[in-house]
Amino acid sequence: MTESVDEGQREPLERILAEIRPPDGADPGDVRRHLDELTKPPGSLGRLEGLAVRLARIYGDPPPPLRHRTVVVLVGDHGVSRREVSAYPREVTTQMCRTLAGGGAAINAIAEAVGARIVAADIGVDANLASVKGLRACNVRRGTRDLVDEAAMTRQETLRAINEGYALFEVEADRTDVVALGEMGIGNTTAASALTSAFLGREVAEVVGRGTGLSRERQAEKVEVVRRAVRRIQNVHDPLDVLAEVGGLEIAGLVGVVFAAARRGKAVVTDGFIATSAVLAATRLKPAIRDYLFASHSSEEPGHRILLDSLRLEPLFDFQMRLGEGTGAALALPILDAAGSVLREMATFSSAGVSGPSCRRGE
Amino acid sequence: MTESVDEGQREPLERILAEIRPPDGADPGDVRRHLDELTKPPGSLGRLEGLAVRLARIYGDPPPPLRHRTVVVLVGDHGVSRREVSAYPREVTTQMCRTLAGGGAAINAIAEAVGARIVAADIGVDANLASVKGLRACNVRRGTRDLVDEAAMTRQETLRAINEGYALFEVEADRTDVVALGEMGIGNTTAASALTSAFLGREVAEVVGRGTGLSRERQAEKVEVVRRAVRRIQNVHDPLDVLAEVGGLEIAGLVGVVFAAARRGKAVVTDGFIATSAVLAATRLKPAIRDYLFASHSSEEPGHRILLDSLRLEPLFDFQMRLGEGTGAALALPILDAAGSVLREMATFSSAGVSGPSCRRGE
Repeated sequence: MTESVDEGQREPLERILAEIRPPDGADPGDVRRHLDELTKPPGSLGRLEGLAVRLARIYGDPPPPLRHRTVVVLVGDHGVSRREVSAYPREVTTQMCRTLAGGGAAINAIAEAVGARIVAADIGVDANLASVKGLRACNVRRGTRDLVDEAAMTRQETLRAINEGYALFEVEADRTDVVALGEMGIGNTTAASALTSAFLGREVAEVVGRGTGLSRERQAEKVEVVRRAVRRIQNVHDPLDVLAEVGGLEIAGLVGVVFAAARRGKAVVTDGFIATSAVLAATRLKPAIRDYLFASHSSEEPGHRILLDSLRLEPLFDFQMRLGEGTGAALALPILDAAGSVLREMATFSSAGVSGPSCRRGE
Repeated sequence: MTESVDEGQREPLERILAEIRPPDGADPGDVRRHLDELTKPPGSLGRLEGLAVRLARIYGDPPPPLRHRTVVVLVGDHGVSRREVSAYPREVTTQMCRTLAGGGAAINAIAEAVGARIVAADIGVDANLASVKGLRACNVRRGTRDLVDEAAMTRQETLRAINEGYALFEVEADRTDVVALGEMGIGNTTAASALTSAFLGREVAEVVGRGTGLSRERQAEKVEVVRRAVRRIQNVHDPLDVLAEVGGLEIAGLVGVVFAAARRGKAVVTDGFIATSAVLAATRLKPAIRDYLFASHSSEEPGHRILLDSLRLEPLFDFQMRLGEGTGAALALPILDAAGSVLREMATFSSAGVSGPSCRRGE
């Protein structure tokens, strides 16, 4: 247990939640009027205009450049990964965590191209990674328990993981304009499936996908595993308890990242199924954070689209990705910045001396 | 008429076309095998992997960083804009061209966010813009003729516009890794509609949209205008003649940009309806250029999707944009770079010591 965990614990969840306020940087109606004064046909930038309105609410109009782009990648193991719910063995979490820290994971490649910095942290890997360079040490526990038989985490462990994520972002907040959520952890689509089914009351078979590439047969077994977990907690309703019962350390950690970002007034870009399950849990604990959230992609996991719909977050693109790590979220960062740049950089019709739509004879 | 036009003319189209070769930087099968060795489940990066294969064909495997991103925005007027085919009056081309050169257009804002440089050129504006800073002087003619009654351009003017675009990119080629196509010109969706209908034999009503925001009534008149133009040239089949009859100076110029980029082995990202009509014309003159082309977005113009389908180019996103200027193409540049970065930066399973999919007992 590191010192930062103890420190994190000193911040009770209630106080964190009380400090998060809905964004009020600009009035949406005013921003829409501003957009219509810019040198373009009204509405012609399509969805970028809606993004611009939401960014202005968070940051003010115009929003500042989103130059400091941070991808937070939290890594944790899952007790359920000892069952056959993943195409990859449990030790891949540790191996990929090292690869991430060494710069060789997919998110490293993508972050490089979009000008984002990665903050990677071990929040619950089943290995001693304390000496790994490029990896923050936030380990709360060496992996969760098996959610089929018992609570994946105690309530206390869940709070600690939230606090770790919160504290991690607090350190980065001053050099972060916008944050993308990422995760790694063999078995974590199983946890995300259970969270989705439990929170939204959806049929397990609807939300369980093929994860990293399961056979149909193994997928059926994964459905059964998630069903048992969801049945086990059918009388659990408190959001924190649901998260503890069937969530994961990296998922709880991302909840904390979302809270810290919202409290600091920064936009949060969600990634695929697992990151979005964390976002759902966060909104259940604090509905106001929704106004800080942006969807990036729609992944191949069927549960992801269900989550995005329930959150009323419209994905920007669908590249048939199913990797996690923040790869989809990172790709959305320049698009989000471009939307804000429109409010910041464009001239107005009057300032540029550009004519508006022509009046028609007889009109 | 500037000197560069004369110089451009010295490069006959036939010689330009002969110098364009299909890309052969890497064998697609080899690249796919490389992708499957990287530390991610096979295929889990979805469409990024297909982009990576195509980039590797152009640049080699791995492709270099696409850091020098150039948006070429060509501007021209259209004789047909004296009819009521646009919501905006003809003089807006000149005004917006000045706004573009001054940094206040939408593409300036978006290029800034995605780290792209803009190369803006007057290739056919109906105004004297020679003294405008930040604007290349490539004016071939002060706007096209009215395509309803006569050829918009002579064959000679069309060749000159192609040459201007070609020469413009030649100057930029050494500091350009990837090029995005952009355009401005009141009335140019009318030209793009006529080109689409004429080249693809599609019903005019299917391809004509609302442009910058026409009323339904005016849209019906625009359909009639395009119908007359297409009927007028029903016996014209040579691609260069079709382009001359119903195209535009900025459209022909973009054909030249595409040729120069393909000859220099650079990827070309197309934008909305007008830029993609130029891309179609270019493929009709030289089918091999298709392998250098990437679609960015699917716009609100119905003809755009028809063009992309006929070119077998799958758009990356649909943000309901309908502005042109290269705004959609620019947004795709970081995504394209990210796809190449995957091949360049990611570790392989063996180099990173990561386990592959687990074998199942009895499997």
